[in-house]
Amino acid sequence: MKKTVLLFYVFVFSVFAFSQQVRPVKNVIVMIPDGTSIGVYSAARWYKMYNELGEALNIDPYITGTVTTFSSNAPIGDSAPTSSAYATGVLQQSGNVAIHPEADPGKDIYPVDTSRTYQPAVTILEASRIEKAKATGLVVTCEFPHATPADFSAHYYNRGSYKAIAPQIAYQNLDVMFGGGTGILTDDIRQHFNHNGTTLIENDKQALMNYTGKGKVWALFGEKALPYDLDRDPERIPSLAEMTEKALEVLSQDEDGFFLMVEGSQVDWAAHANDPVGIITEFLAFDEAVGKVMDFARSNGETAVIVLADHGNSGFTIGSSRCKGYDKLSLAELFSTVSQCKLTASGIESVLVNTRPENVKGEFKKYTGIDLTDEEVGMLLSSKNYKASDYTQVKNSNNMLNNIVNILNAHMCFGFTTGGHTGEEVLLSAYHPFGDVPRGHLCNRDVNAYLVEVSGLTTPLHELSDRIFAKHTDVFAGMRYTIDSSNPDFPVLKVKKGRNTLEIKAFSSVGKLNGKPFDIGSVVVYIDKNHTFYLPQDLAKKL
Amino acid sequence: MKKTVLLFYVFVFSVFAFSQQVRPVKNVIVMIPDGTSIGVYSAARWYKMYNELGEALNIDPYITGTVTTFSSNAPIGDSAPTSSAYATGVLQQSGNVAIHPEADPGKDIYPVDTSRTYQPAVTILEASRIEKAKATGLVVTCEFPHATPADFSAHYYNRGSYKAIAPQIAYQNLDVMFGGGTGILTDDIRQHFNHNGTTLIENDKQALMNYTGKGKVWALFGEKALPYDLDRDPERIPSLAEMTEKALEVLSQDEDGFFLMVEGSQVDWAAHANDPVGIITEFLAFDEAVGKVMDFARSNGETAVIVLADHGNSGFTIGSSRCKGYDKLSLAELFSTVSQCKLTASGIESVLVNTRPENVKGEFKKYTGIDLTDEEVGMLLSSKNYKASDYTQVKNSNNMLNNIVNILNAHMCFGFTTGGHTGEEVLLSAYHPFGDVPRGHLCNRDVNAYLVEVSGLTTPLHELSDRIFAKHTDVFAGMRYTIDSSNPDFPVLKVKKGRNTLEIKAFSSVGKLNGKPFDIGSVVVYIDKNHTFYLPQDLAKKL
Repeated sequence: MKKTVLLFYVFVFSVFAFSQQVRPVKNVIVMIPDGTSIGVYSAARWYKMYNELGEALNIDPYITGTVTTFSSNAPIGDSAPTSSAYATGVLQQSGNVAIHPEADPGKDIYPVDTSRTYQPAVTILEASRIEKAKATGLVVTCEFPHATPADFSAHYYNRGSYKAIAPQIAYQNLDVMFGGGTGILTDDIRQHFNHNGTTLIENDKQALMNYTGKGKVWALFGEKALPYDLDRDPERIPSLAEMTEKALEVLSQDEDGFFLMVEGSQVDWAAHANDPVGIITEFLAFDEAVGKVMDFARSNGETAVIVLADHGNSGFTIGSSRCKGYDKLSLAELFSTVSQCKLTASGIESVLVNTRPENVKGEFKKYTGIDLTDEEVGMLLSSKNYKASDYTQVKNSNNMLNNIVNILNAHMCFGFTTGGHTGEEVLLSAYHPFGDVPRGHLCNRDVNAYLVEVSGLTTPLHELSDRIFAKHTDVFAGMRYTIDSSNPDFPVLKVKKGRNTLEIKAFSSVGKLNGKPFDIGSVVVYIDKNHTFYLPQDLAKKL
Repeated sequence: MKKTVLLFYVFVFSVFAFSQQVRPVKNVIVMIPDGTSIGVYSAARWYKMYNELGEALNIDPYITGTVTTFSSNAPIGDSAPTSSAYATGVLQQSGNVAIHPEADPGKDIYPVDTSRTYQPAVTILEASRIEKAKATGLVVTCEFPHATPADFSAHYYNRGSYKAIAPQIAYQNLDVMFGGGTGILTDDIRQHFNHNGTTLIENDKQALMNYTGKGKVWALFGEKALPYDLDRDPERIPSLAEMTEKALEVLSQDEDGFFLMVEGSQVDWAAHANDPVGIITEFLAFDEAVGKVMDFARSNGETAVIVLADHGNSGFTIGSSRCKGYDKLSLAELFSTVSQCKLTASGIESVLVNTRPENVKGEFKKYTGIDLTDEEVGMLLSSKNYKASDYTQVKNSNNMLNNIVNILNAHMCFGFTTGGHTGEEVLLSAYHPFGDVPRGHLCNRDVNAYLVEVSGLTTPLHELSDRIFAKHTDVFAGMRYTIDSSNPDFPVLKVKKGRNTLEIKAFSSVGKLNGKPFDIGSVVVYIDKNHTFYLPQDLAKKL
């Protein structure tokens, strides 16, 4: 790898190929269809046409370029570092959530500044609130501390550590958080919501739809993630579009404007599963939300929107060598089977695992229109997680989801190169009231630069990072401080000066001065790897 | 399939999502990287970076949207109908070259007007010459009557019929035709070049490079196609970029402006072969030509350019399930092997088929850097087309090209879903001196509408088609005419009126009146399926 060229690359991938300027606007919306490769757009459009669901995708008029999205040490990105790069402008490693990465010599695509390793990197959401007093919101269909929402509202080196991430999101004092994960709420988070006046709605769609308040509101559906859109009970669970509309209604009441991130979280999951039904219908549910956002932006006149995936997934294509003569098939031949499916592969699995063996064939037909062969029925009955069967008697038994996907794909002509992420650039779409959209090919950091500019932020994010994520050893240098790890998940930094005691709990934004709570203004992050609290520079002044 | 919606679709896929107007310009250039999926752009960019070949693709600043490209009766397109749709605005069937298709009830995506079946559809190249007196040119690396160049300059229902297509291209009186196919030239074509003053250069790079004339010039290299760019002898064979630069030099001397189509013909072929070396290096050769064109357009100030593939191919991805842990690999790990290859898989095959068995391992290493295992050597030696081996002793023997590709791919982490075309939308890039570029998502016919508008053509192409491709039975109704099929490949229409005799030869643009040649002004197409000559409406006036 040749460092000199790669460094140069940063400056050449130009954001604003044709637009001379980027005029700041009041509201900024980022929409992320997670793990969506270009073929998903195409298949969703043909599916929509075949099923008389409309003539084009809502996103169609707004496609404006492509984005190369990667980790600090690998061309193929994981959701955590890729959306983190959009949110912060800082490249990072697999698993990293809005944080400066470790160095990985020989693999780093750009040199990594090791003096910053583990320092939280301020996100565009945080900067919008801190610098511009904007309202902030997140709307997702995954559990709320999952990678993408976390990338905009939390900081940690390990995306899987919900213990560190969930409280940070709660202590961000978001104006809107709609998504999944009631099971992840803690007593501490609930208490904080009481203190900061957040309305918490749990598994109550009507309450969300009826919410007319101006204040902070969280609405969560399901222990963890929401169901796939196709598998969703529309009476009980809101669609991404419905949640998005409500978020716009709440956030647009803020006079200072807002920053909103909307994620179509589960296109990625369906792609990992190689399930064409899930891929297409999840993307269409996302595109429905795009329609709501674009309607809002066009009528509002002070709102910019960018829409882009965080990485490709599964190499999904219309056409596969499995399927002889596929390239001559008609629209009906290519899209009738997938269109007949009334549940995703995962939804079908939920039904079949609780279905008696003699009814499996009928149930499968009911939800897919496909007549199973005896061999296919046998394959389903042999599934590892099928309760009515003794899977230990089956060699190399798969989970039922895999068996369902294999059967579905044998009846369709979509192709996949993998069940993981892929390294192709993703599509970029954008709207700006004066047409100041990014165009051409961008790299992920350019996207952050655009967001900073269109949000009218004047302090560079790294300067803000230095201001609110300084090391406690620097901030309280010369003072007496200790780290109380009696609760190892939430260490508390205790600083004494004269008769004053400052207590700062990890992953919170509420400190205590002599036992009295106060708002720190940003979340405090504790990194166990270097035993360091990252907190505002000016906290020492409290003492 | 639901016709009402699909009809509507035509009008909704909007070309000019954001640009209010399309100001006509003097010169129009269409560039087609045949069969190029989005992953090719991404891999080529990383390859370029890894090899210090530059920091970005030449095309990067110009990406502006995507295009759905399809046949009249199938969502997945073949090169012939897809580029024909760009050239003519008429959807057509697999194999069709710029011609109105047959109906295929139940499969047609839009209703087909059967009253026009087999009627040639005027191309943007023809219309530019006829309506605007523009110079016209084609630059390709395939043989000149191959699908894409033919789509702009010939008309037939079967792309494989070079007998019908090659003479049409010659009789188009192109100002520039650079590409492959000396072996396809006929005595008749050579004679025509003598008559119309075309300079014919065969296998003489120096002569092409030294050409300074203003007049018509053809330069062909190789019996059929040019070699892949990586396998090319730069002393003897020009690059696509070199041919493109020369074409711009010749064409830009025309005061009326020009229409030029440049094709990176063989990205598609390497994709069919699943050869990552060929795919990446062919696309980079194309991108080099893009650089020359964009330099010209930006400095010229009166030139619009669009760049777009005709369809996807092979589902090429960076990453494959074959390759465990591929998504964590570094740039070097992903791109060093492909970068070491000094020839494409096809180029390696040309060497190895003539290599003695004991030298195969060494030669393979020399051109790829890969140390073959004994098993891999055995696989190569068993190849069907390996002369030193008795392939009949080998069960299921492959051609050596397949074996080479399988070995290369086992050492790399690129994925493929097929060896055929795929149905994903392709990237659209564009330049216009005043920024009037198409944006967002387009369908293939929208591309033609844009080309017509930016070329300043005021007669709709279908009206021009009716003018120059009328049925002889209509044009000469009431007169005495016969079809002389003594040469079945080139039937001659003979019309008598009074003492005058008009002779019109199929696939030519030169007629004879009482034995005296005259220029018809456009090519005449004969369709054997309906025994019809398609020729200008006003030809009857000659008599």
